[in-house]
Amino acid sequence: MLSWVDGQPAAQLSVLDRGLAYGDGLFETIAVRGGQPRLLARHLARLDDGLRRLRLPLDLGELERELLAFCAELGEGVAKLLVTRGEGARGYAPPQPTQPRRILLGSPMPVYPAEHADRGVRLFPCVTRLAEQPLLAGLKHLNRLEQVLARSEWQDPAYAEGLMCDGAGRVIEGVYSNLFLVKDGRLLSADLSRCGVAGVMRAEVLAQAAALGIAVQLGDISRADLLAADEVFLCNSLYGIWPVRELQGHDWSVGPLTRKLQGIIRSLLDS
Amino acid sequence: MLSWVDGQPAAQLSVLDRGLAYGDGLFETIAVRGGQPRLLARHLARLDDGLRRLRLPLDLGELERELLAFCAELGEGVAKLLVTRGEGARGYAPPQPTQPRRILLGSPMPVYPAEHADRGVRLFPCVTRLAEQPLLAGLKHLNRLEQVLARSEWQDPAYAEGLMCDGAGRVIEGVYSNLFLVKDGRLLSADLSRCGVAGVMRAEVLAQAAALGIAVQLGDISRADLLAADEVFLCNSLYGIWPVRELQGHDWSVGPLTRKLQGIIRSLLDS
Repeated sequence: MLSWVDGQPAAQLSVLDRGLAYGDGLFETIAVRGGQPRLLARHLARLDDGLRRLRLPLDLGELERELLAFCAELGEGVAKLLVTRGEGARGYAPPQPTQPRRILLGSPMPVYPAEHADRGVRLFPCVTRLAEQPLLAGLKHLNRLEQVLARSEWQDPAYAEGLMCDGAGRVIEGVYSNLFLVKDGRLLSADLSRCGVAGVMRAEVLAQAAALGIAVQLGDISRADLLAADEVFLCNSLYGIWPVRELQGHDWSVGPLTRKLQGIIRSLLDS
Repeated sequence: MLSWVDGQPAAQLSVLDRGLAYGDGLFETIAVRGGQPRLLARHLARLDDGLRRLRLPLDLGELERELLAFCAELGEGVAKLLVTRGEGARGYAPPQPTQPRRILLGSPMPVYPAEHADRGVRLFPCVTRLAEQPLLAGLKHLNRLEQVLARSEWQDPAYAEGLMCDGAGRVIEGVYSNLFLVKDGRLLSADLSRCGVAGVMRAEVLAQAAALGIAVQLGDISRADLLAADEVFLCNSLYGIWPVRELQGHDWSVGPLTRKLQGIIRSLLDS
């Protein structure tokens, strides 16, 4: 497996890394086709937001060059980029000065059943709730125990994803996807200012919808809103868009807006 | 620096470790004197609770033998034990089967100013709030970005610790300590069923107080409760007990129950 640490081929890193100690860092999961990262600008923009909010000093230009070189070597697959606060002495206080560490891991593109994109997926209703932490909301940081717990709730492959709500029962996202509703021709997705991960594909879907002149609303989504939706779909940076067809006995059809956006996203990923 | 990975001297570990990827694991910070871990039974009990709640299959007997051998080699200082879910493919689903990884890191015992234990410490009022996540509350898991953010709020060494509250403003704990109040001869500490770390020294203090016949209450603590307390103190597994003397202009004296418990804990750590 291709892996680099701080720009050099390496399969190991220091046991003193704060990514391990505290999950003190960020990551991006990037589709790579023909040696090129997909949605690169969006990945870098989200990473930049995370670096600022976690006060991680890193030269994004240098990182981009490194990422491009890695993707060129990888060719096809998934590039996972991690940025940690580097090594530090024991204790939570950030090391002064901080030398962030870059880690790049290559893996094959996952092969999902074709029917996930075609007929749609069933959602497992996760009981693990997302805690509200505005200081970390939206970031793809390395503190992901909630997702680990949620994903461990089901093994049945009949469920391609799990639905996660916050402590108040608001519908937020999938375990590794963002969720969209279509209602009366409008697109709805959860406000992610309290919890959740602001996926790069979510940002792309929002931009594509805006370009199509579709009204978009970000806000609170109740379970009733979800069940009343005309169409429901998931998205992430690797698979693009999957329609949702079932949750706990409630069925949705695959609708026209889902199909339209799915085609646009598919061509972006495949181009 | 002394460090072992899975029982063998090693300074590095795989970039695929889930401790790095997701903070998918637990840790213990253990005082070591004369080659012996202090409060060993309490550290193992908390770890066991965490292993069960995170469904990490690990032989505690084998781990204890390894820890004792490590402490014997370390002699004096701090043994930090990490247990992660080991290596896995990309994705949140726990690997089947799971092979947890043990990491042991030695460091010198930190040298704190003597006046922290003697005159007491000043608390920095952290604005970072602890999110409510009952599934993880009490555990010393590797998702510690809240503590990293809180500890980065102050650099002034006049503050030895920071006070953390939950989203509702309830007083919970220090960034790396638990907090106790004394009021009318009773000992109060926060209920940790929604957030916070159930420290091993907290458990020891509770047990010592019970043995002394002191009434103990675990529950919600408001800021008003804190300010109205007769005595306030912090505890952790390395420094034992520090009285709290000031928070935002409010002063407390070092009281008799704090001093009594401090002496008992000191002799436990030094014995």
